Amino acid sequence: MTAVLASLRHPVVLAPLAGGATTPSLVAAVGDAGGLGFIGAGYRTPDDLAAQIAAVRRLTPAPFGVNVFVPRRDPVDPAALDAYVRSLRADADRLGTRVGEARDEDDAWDAKIALLTGDPVPVVSFTFACPPAGVVAALRAAGSEVWVTVTSAAEARAAAAAGAQALVCQGAEAGGHRGAWDDRDDAESPGLLALLRLVAAATDLPLVAAGGIAAGAGAAAVVAAGARAAQMGTAFLRAAEAGTHPAHRAALAGEGRTGLTRAFTGRTARGIVNRFMEEHDADAVVAYPHVHHATAPLRAAARQAGDAGGFNLWAGQAHALAREAPAGEIVRAIAAEAAAAARAAADRLSPPGG
Amino acid sequence: MTAVLASLRHPVVLAPLAGGATTPSLVAAVGDAGGLGFIGAGYRTPDDLAAQIAAVRRLTPAPFGVNVFVPRRDPVDPAALDAYVRSLRADADRLGTRVGEARDEDDAWDAKIALLTGDPVPVVSFTFACPPAGVVAALRAAGSEVWVTVTSAAEARAAAAAGAQALVCQGAEAGGHRGAWDDRDDAESPGLLALLRLVAAATDLPLVAAGGIAAGAGAAAVVAAGARAAQMGTAFLRAAEAGTHPAHRAALAGEGRTGLTRAFTGRTARGIVNRFMEEHDADAVVAYPHVHHATAPLRAAARQAGDAGGFNLWAGQAHALAREAPAGEIVRAIAAEAAAAARAAADRLSPPGG
Repeated sequence: MTAVLASLRHPVVLAPLAGGATTPSLVAAVGDAGGLGFIGAGYRTPDDLAAQIAAVRRLTPAPFGVNVFVPRRDPVDPAALDAYVRSLRADADRLGTRVGEARDEDDAWDAKIALLTGDPVPVVSFTFACPPAGVVAALRAAGSEVWVTVTSAAEARAAAAAGAQALVCQGAEAGGHRGAWDDRDDAESPGLLALLRLVAAATDLPLVAAGGIAAGAGAAAVVAAGARAAQMGTAFLRAAEAGTHPAHRAALAGEGRTGLTRAFTGRTARGIVNRFMEEHDADAVVAYPHVHHATAPLRAAARQAGDAGGFNLWAGQAHALAREAPAGEIVRAIAAEAAAAARAAADRLSPPGG
Repeated sequence: MTAVLASLRHPVVLAPLAGGATTPSLVAAVGDAGGLGFIGAGYRTPDDLAAQIAAVRRLTPAPFGVNVFVPRRDPVDPAALDAYVRSLRADADRLGTRVGEARDEDDAWDAKIALLTGDPVPVVSFTFACPPAGVVAALRAAGSEVWVTVTSAAEARAAAAAGAQALVCQGAEAGGHRGAWDDRDDAESPGLLALLRLVAAATDLPLVAAGGIAAGAGAAAVVAAGARAAQMGTAFLRAAEAGTHPAHRAALAGEGRTGLTRAFTGRTARGIVNRFMEEHDADAVVAYPHVHHATAPLRAAARQAGDAGGFNLWAGQAHALAREAPAGEIVRAIAAEAAAAARAAADRLSPPGG
């Protein structure tokens, strides 16, 4: 158990939601209710990240985390990328915009690490790969806990070797980007329950479970499977404080099926299947963040138009269970449901006096 | 809760393992230990099924179940099937055998239903589709409980409407054949935790959870998520009483990754990735049971030669956690682990006196 995990009144962690859904008030509301909020550093400039951190600190004394994308260089096929970008032009024309420049960049990695070592936050978590051991050591020396997102037992062992203090186990059910370290090889990511037990057999680190949990019975289940906390993103996308687009909110409330696709960003992610996915998934390529930048103007235009068919509706497989409520209420409801579900399971499996 | 589920000392159900792994002594050992054994009727002649049932009855007074494949007619592309069958010839030549006839048949559906209505067993479960409501009614009238395997909330609603008394929720983690009713459309089957909660929101039927559970903590997790019992197949493939091939047993004990493929049978199934899968998966077609019959002589020859690269190594995602022990010991160990895990989760989520 890490100090931050031990300090939580409820084992509920807000998943980092890059790209607008996370707001300082959402992070603070989860923390104030006894969970752990997370700021997604992805896509933000270092200045914007610093401003987000400052805003959360103004709103709450509760601990919180910052999640950072680890840049990784999957080989990109320039011809395939170019063909994919060209295939987006008709959409761009229809929307009255242009395809963005399919550029590479590292999400300001050095500046963000410098910011976080210089002005430490309680938890720094990483996604997409393992940070170098030196970065882990520097953040730990600065006083932060370091968590690393893993999707297999092999990644768990490597993260432990690099100095991670807790592992976020992301099951295949999770919405948004897959955390698999090699995006070319994620077709067989384990489901959350299997992943938790395989990772628990591989390391002694405390585990945080992510993927398709959505509500309290799921949280109880992952704690029974050995997790110290349940990390939930989709469960908070309909929260009052979330910056989720109204058309995205509406889709979450329905029963639309989710699917994995690289069509939006060039990296595999799970979202509710919509027109853009159906039209572009088959042609999509491994090229992150190139494709993210190429599709950005199209997605912005679709959002502007309120067209749920045209932008990424990230969602975990259990999105239909997410509720519309203030975030603090969601945290408390999940905690109460989880306690009741765990108690009922314990009584069923070893009757008191039985 | 059904009567059979309520009667179990331990909420542990042996998954039906078609194709040789299930033996009457395995079914009886699970039942004698307080779990529920299952005979897989798939691939057996009606006479062989009757003999299996008689053998189990001789070995134990415990209740048990019979699982029946529901024939369903996914449209088959004859040219694609023919091309796939031809692609197997080099393997057949190397093995000194011939590709089998890629024939269609219904696994003796009428005769098996007649057998089971005429001489009822405690539970009849179905996989691959929903049996007609008339068949469900006839089996119930004969005194059997009827369970139906589902992989989505929509299938759960349809099974409830057809008269099912319990639903086996098969998560994407599960080994062997996928139970999805439309095999062309299974790419996005939910992971087990998400599936259980989505199905619980869709029906009030008692749920049996299957897929990647493997050990006691996983069983506690699915009970916390609302299941009445955990159905496990891979957990028993290394049992002393199982008919599992030695090369398959050895692969289960390793960390080999699993994958989904139609290469062996023409229907999507999960197994440990091996040479046959790697060589044939890309060309495989939707054509069940045609491909099952076509590959049967090749798989038999590979088994005979002890070549784990040449036959189907069905396994769930958590196969590395399966243990080698007598089946009764496995049932008792899983039950004890599950009780401890659920108790620990309950104490963590609502401290006694807290």
